Amino acid sequence: MKQLKTSLEQFAITTYLLKWTLLVLPVSLVAGSVVALFLWLLEEATNYRYAHTWLLYLLPLAGVFIYWLYNKWGKEAAGGNNLVIDEIHQPGGGVPAKMTPLILVTTVITHLFGGSAGREGTAVQIGGSVAQYFARLLKLDKEDVRILLTTGIAAGFGAVFGTPVTGAVFALEVLALGSIRHKGLLPCLMAAVLADFVCTAWGIHHTKYHISFASISHLQDGWLLVKVIVAGVAFGLTSFLFATTTHSIQHFSNRFISARWLIPVAGALTVILLTFVLQTSDYLGLGVSNPDASAVTIVSCFRPGGAAYFSWFWKLLFTAITLGTGFKGGEVTPLFFMGAALGNTVATLTGAPVDLLAGLGFIAVFAGATNTPIACTIMGVELFGADNLLYYAVACFTAYYFSGHSGIYGAQRIAVPKL
Amino acid sequence: MKQLKTSLEQFAITTYLLKWTLLVLPVSLVAGSVVALFLWLLEEATNYRYAHTWLLYLLPLAGVFIYWLYNKWGKEAAGGNNLVIDEIHQPGGGVPAKMTPLILVTTVITHLFGGSAGREGTAVQIGGSVAQYFARLLKLDKEDVRILLTTGIAAGFGAVFGTPVTGAVFALEVLALGSIRHKGLLPCLMAAVLADFVCTAWGIHHTKYHISFASISHLQDGWLLVKVIVAGVAFGLTSFLFATTTHSIQHFSNRFISARWLIPVAGALTVILLTFVLQTSDYLGLGVSNPDASAVTIVSCFRPGGAAYFSWFWKLLFTAITLGTGFKGGEVTPLFFMGAALGNTVATLTGAPVDLLAGLGFIAVFAGATNTPIACTIMGVELFGADNLLYYAVACFTAYYFSGHSGIYGAQRIAVPKL
Repeated sequence: MKQLKTSLEQFAITTYLLKWTLLVLPVSLVAGSVVALFLWLLEEATNYRYAHTWLLYLLPLAGVFIYWLYNKWGKEAAGGNNLVIDEIHQPGGGVPAKMTPLILVTTVITHLFGGSAGREGTAVQIGGSVAQYFARLLKLDKEDVRILLTTGIAAGFGAVFGTPVTGAVFALEVLALGSIRHKGLLPCLMAAVLADFVCTAWGIHHTKYHISFASISHLQDGWLLVKVIVAGVAFGLTSFLFATTTHSIQHFSNRFISARWLIPVAGALTVILLTFVLQTSDYLGLGVSNPDASAVTIVSCFRPGGAAYFSWFWKLLFTAITLGTGFKGGEVTPLFFMGAALGNTVATLTGAPVDLLAGLGFIAVFAGATNTPIACTIMGVELFGADNLLYYAVACFTAYYFSGHSGIYGAQRIAVPKL
Repeated sequence: MKQLKTSLEQFAITTYLLKWTLLVLPVSLVAGSVVALFLWLLEEATNYRYAHTWLLYLLPLAGVFIYWLYNKWGKEAAGGNNLVIDEIHQPGGGVPAKMTPLILVTTVITHLFGGSAGREGTAVQIGGSVAQYFARLLKLDKEDVRILLTTGIAAGFGAVFGTPVTGAVFALEVLALGSIRHKGLLPCLMAAVLADFVCTAWGIHHTKYHISFASISHLQDGWLLVKVIVAGVAFGLTSFLFATTTHSIQHFSNRFISARWLIPVAGALTVILLTFVLQTSDYLGLGVSNPDASAVTIVSCFRPGGAAYFSWFWKLLFTAITLGTGFKGGEVTPLFFMGAALGNTVATLTGAPVDLLAGLGFIAVFAGATNTPIACTIMGVELFGADNLLYYAVACFTAYYFSGHSGIYGAQRIAVPKL
């Protein structure tokens, strides 16, 4: 910027933004609506499972069905989130349109039969494949396809969690470890805001979390800061453990189980077995809330006594097995669960405020596992308010470092190493 | 990240972070303390000027003195913020240690005699030169010098505005237009938090701003969003206008006034003349607050009727003249003023909430002029709370686009073009 461009490039910028408003509009409308449908189906499936607990016994069959579906119809869609990220870095065959129905149906199946999984991966894939569909329809050039796919991620993320600003920043931060490139910054925000608006207009409500602890003045309590740093280290190590466990389960089951369709069966049987051993179904499904008031859920983790010491570990194991053996869904809601539960445990052990630490774990384990510390700091604000912003940043940034160069998205490039 | 590094790099990360804690400690302690001294002197100088309005007549002399000081003692320090940014991109001669006393003294002089300027530039230069001093003392290698200088920016910014999280993100976002590289993310946060803590421990208080308007649900009011977008465009154009006006004044005065010491004299005389023509001293100095309750200040802009239609323009002109003719100080507080005043005007014209629009202008004109939309969105949270996060992002991102490839820091590289 040694030389000021004094030509009125503001006109070019206006044209650019108008063009992107038009491009983003259909993507957000469709993605927001499909995500709304998805969230509604998910809620129905979850409630149905609570009412019919025997459905868990059919999880092995559900796994075989999901395997068959992808094998028959969607081999090129199996890459999931990684495919979307890869296509942004290096446009190739494109994200197939059938990714949307496939991931939607298989995620709902996973949840209906008690697999432990999330939502964001599904929403991001919906956003990505919807974006690709319009990109193809409109014959966009490579550069524009990239931006439109990124807005698809933003739309999916913004809609599924009701956090549009986080969605926009997340879409730009998740592509490569250690950087945010502002390419398509405003289009991403438009997409996320619109998709969230559409999703809400369909009547979808998001769970409200509440941190009543409010730091009146930053650093007035030096000990609390120390506890938050320690917790941040634990959160980052948990991200690392989850990513490596999931990858290892995937790797070893592919290596030792040669009949591929048996992999989800083995996974499902392990989930059933663990449920019996632990005598609880708390770690099945999404885990946001539960009709059983004594169950461990994300919501309960915000209360003292709302989680057992090792709840975070069990959720980690259930999810790593579910997703590592071919079931479908996102990783993020389980990451929220692990984080909130671990936060609860750390708070109990150190005497820190439980709701604060649960909230910090919620965002920080996710930050570590996806390498998006700034987006997750903003998510803290969007979900829990501004009072503890400093602690959000400390927890997320620390977890980001301690997850190392691991992560749940193998397609994520390393832009700036952490050391 | 195709390959997971399963070696326990967490140990290396721990060592890295301990090293940086030790490196950041002295920088933050000294920078935070010097910034505290600076803010105290600034307050004293501002109050003294309010009590002795005739000081304005000495502004031309003050300008000559500043010119003489830099000419005699600090030619290599005259690059100011740009020098700090340049040294991070391409370590060269280094940031001289005498930059700290020079910029501190000359900024206080500028304010004492009624120049219209800010604080952040001074604080960033203090942080940068303190960091460079320790880097030299400890014989750090190039890469570490870069990171330490960046933490210096974070420390200065975090301390001067009492916004540590913004300070950390700002330091990483300001280096190159269109990107944030997470190199030194946690060291920057540590530096900003510590420096802010030290500065506060010295008894420095920051002005509190308040937006009572709270958007209960995002987008419940579509018209307000439209108004915010329109305001965002206006904010971005104002950033552009300020940057180009300052550069032009600098350029033309250097071209047409061959006796260099006459340049600040001409600038000072113009400031005095404008003060007489406008019959107000509201646009002199920092402009945060004023003993005269009817004066236009940043604080008053948050009230209906707290600014005239063209207050933003006059502050722009006063500041561009002051800084464009060689007086010293930052640009950011005047940018806050322009933004808040313009927000007040836009709110009055469109019927939007005045405090909300003033707050948005406060952060967004700054976002456009420094090309730091994400840092400024976070600043909104740190200063005004979480309620209107969506509007912060919309205003800052929009202003970021509409300022074009201009900006107040000539040394800022273009990493990712806006189009």
